[in-house]
Amino acid sequence: MSKIIAVNAGSSSLKFQLYEMPKETVLTSGIVERIGFEDAVFTIKVDGEKVSKTLPVKDHTVAVNLLLEALVEHNIVADLNEIVAAGHRVVHGGEYFSKSVLVDDDVVKKVDELCELAPLHNPGALVGYRAFKASLPNSKHVFTFDTAFHQTMEADTYIYPLPYEWYTEHKVRRYGMHGTSHQYVSQRCAELLNKDLKDTKIITLHLGGGASITAVDGGKSINTSMGFTPLGGIMMGTRCGDIDPAIVPFMEEQLGVSPKEMDTILNKQSGLLGVSGVSSDGRDIEKASDEGNERAKLAMSIFVNRVVQTVGSYYVQMGGLDAIVFTAGIGENDFKTRERVMRKLEATLGTEVDTDANKVRGEEQLLTTADSKVSVYLIPTNEEVMIARDTFAIVG
Amino acid sequence: MSKIIAVNAGSSSLKFQLYEMPKETVLTSGIVERIGFEDAVFTIKVDGEKVSKTLPVKDHTVAVNLLLEALVEHNIVADLNEIVAAGHRVVHGGEYFSKSVLVDDDVVKKVDELCELAPLHNPGALVGYRAFKASLPNSKHVFTFDTAFHQTMEADTYIYPLPYEWYTEHKVRRYGMHGTSHQYVSQRCAELLNKDLKDTKIITLHLGGGASITAVDGGKSINTSMGFTPLGGIMMGTRCGDIDPAIVPFMEEQLGVSPKEMDTILNKQSGLLGVSGVSSDGRDIEKASDEGNERAKLAMSIFVNRVVQTVGSYYVQMGGLDAIVFTAGIGENDFKTRERVMRKLEATLGTEVDTDANKVRGEEQLLTTADSKVSVYLIPTNEEVMIARDTFAIVG
Repeated sequence: MSKIIAVNAGSSSLKFQLYEMPKETVLTSGIVERIGFEDAVFTIKVDGEKVSKTLPVKDHTVAVNLLLEALVEHNIVADLNEIVAAGHRVVHGGEYFSKSVLVDDDVVKKVDELCELAPLHNPGALVGYRAFKASLPNSKHVFTFDTAFHQTMEADTYIYPLPYEWYTEHKVRRYGMHGTSHQYVSQRCAELLNKDLKDTKIITLHLGGGASITAVDGGKSINTSMGFTPLGGIMMGTRCGDIDPAIVPFMEEQLGVSPKEMDTILNKQSGLLGVSGVSSDGRDIEKASDEGNERAKLAMSIFVNRVVQTVGSYYVQMGGLDAIVFTAGIGENDFKTRERVMRKLEATLGTEVDTDANKVRGEEQLLTTADSKVSVYLIPTNEEVMIARDTFAIVG
Repeated sequence: MSKIIAVNAGSSSLKFQLYEMPKETVLTSGIVERIGFEDAVFTIKVDGEKVSKTLPVKDHTVAVNLLLEALVEHNIVADLNEIVAAGHRVVHGGEYFSKSVLVDDDVVKKVDELCELAPLHNPGALVGYRAFKASLPNSKHVFTFDTAFHQTMEADTYIYPLPYEWYTEHKVRRYGMHGTSHQYVSQRCAELLNKDLKDTKIITLHLGGGASITAVDGGKSINTSMGFTPLGGIMMGTRCGDIDPAIVPFMEEQLGVSPKEMDTILNKQSGLLGVSGVSSDGRDIEKASDEGNERAKLAMSIFVNRVVQTVGSYYVQMGGLDAIVFTAGIGENDFKTRERVMRKLEATLGTEVDTDANKVRGEEQLLTTADSKVSVYLIPTNEEVMIARDTFAIVG
């Protein structure tokens, strides 16, 4: 039995789950928010209850020590040496990492180099790792990458129809994101289908504020909608997804904005927010739609269309389909959107909605009838347990 | 019986076909190339033979007079007044034109205004129109728009997930192109299927140097791959198609290029040319592939993938499919690419290739077996006859 902590460190936050492996028992979980501020908030679950306090947290090292002390204080661990390993979520593994790895100097150097491709994410992961390494010098450390699961894509899927030198010299290619989530729900889906993962064709819809769709053939990602960056693919809360790229230089000239400003507009002011003018949150948009807001209705229709069309393209690319999985914020909670997607797929893919079953939120559930040609599941994602599993498998 | 001339005027060229309507007999056809140069070339078909001469052609008015004189000289018409109307191809009709229209001052003003959206194309059409109007003052004139056929798309297909003001204030939306071609081949396909057009679901693949795919449901375009500009959609000879738009500002910064320069790279140095490094022409790429050039192979694989995925997405969006049509340069002549596309679609759409039938080039032909679930046709496109038909319908 080994205690393993799964860590997701951002630039100003640090989420964690402590597992007893291999049983996958969650011993506790929590988060430090507003790191670097006088009024940071530390929350930890003790005996199932959330305990919060507000205090100054100068940096990630302070945050890590805070949570480690709390583990001892609340008797969650008797001694910090019980924590044999920490698994750290890293967003971008580039082409270096196709699976989770034990961290050494070379790994750190590569992740640091990849900060160029994920400037908002990879630096936080490194800061988090260094803080844990200082406080848990006897533990082993593993990096789990959001991109790793998608490294099985073929070149004719990951290379863009752009000057080839952009790939060789500037690393421009499809990487994909949310890999840990797509992998987790596709594996779980194969269990629910009672099939060997190798014999399944599954399309996983990770629909949250960021959203991506993956074609998982025999357990391997063969295509995914996010691309060079998390802006690519389908419409999202504030991101546009793939578009006619001529719009970018055209609007840069029309608006007189710099490349950086354009990138911000495409990432922060587009998607559901840009079309609806109401919100980036599906719940607000649904409310506005119900009240007759036409742009809110339009925004949700575009979102549904883009999901449906991507499912269609992956269905044909895989040459078949056993199941579809909904996961993440919208996928787990927005049953109306799920129903719209399934209804639009019904004529061609035979997804026959079980309307009562589909009303569920956040729980594992088959959403289609027993006769449905393709099964559709809601499977709550669990990236933390994947991190813990990978970490345990490596340091085990 | 009415003689109608169909005209396709570019910035330095002018193509024409003279029809006897409604029989659709082609009386002659030809082209003036290198308008504005001392060594312009005028070619016209006389009794089925091409007659060419090289001479200075100052401008479009000179070109038009040259061809009109040739019609009389070669006894193709006895008197220019026999030409009751000219139908002019215009690339961009914006949201103003959902079908061909009789030209008046207001129409000219709108086409002129739309030059902003099609700076390389609309000006040439206007110059051509004015030259014909001066030389054929008694004829009527009709504009046929490449975008018109796609005006039946719903807002949730033509609005991009971008700030809504980009649509209302800058006209950024999906327009689509090649509409006359998609309309022609879909109508012809319904005839070949022996079905009422209203009862058909057809996906038309216009694959040339520029390439677009359209979902035609009951005779109406419900989605098309080209977007705000002809850069959008699938991979093309030198154009990239839809991509993760974050690549654009990222590479503008990496290369230090302006929006205009970036637009040129995406339009002229990408696509098959960009990936292969060999050529934008499928024939050259195939030759290089056969000689073992890996990037040439990769380029064709990406092209095939993007076609297949788009077909898949439209299949699901339409909720069914009766037939697929190949047309334009690659679609009519490159049987290897056609076969690869059909083979990739076979598992899910049931397109069973008739390999012998598929060897045809440039001729109307069913390419699938009698048992094939979805029929695939080669139908040579004929935009000129559509222009003549629309013109005759309006002035006839």
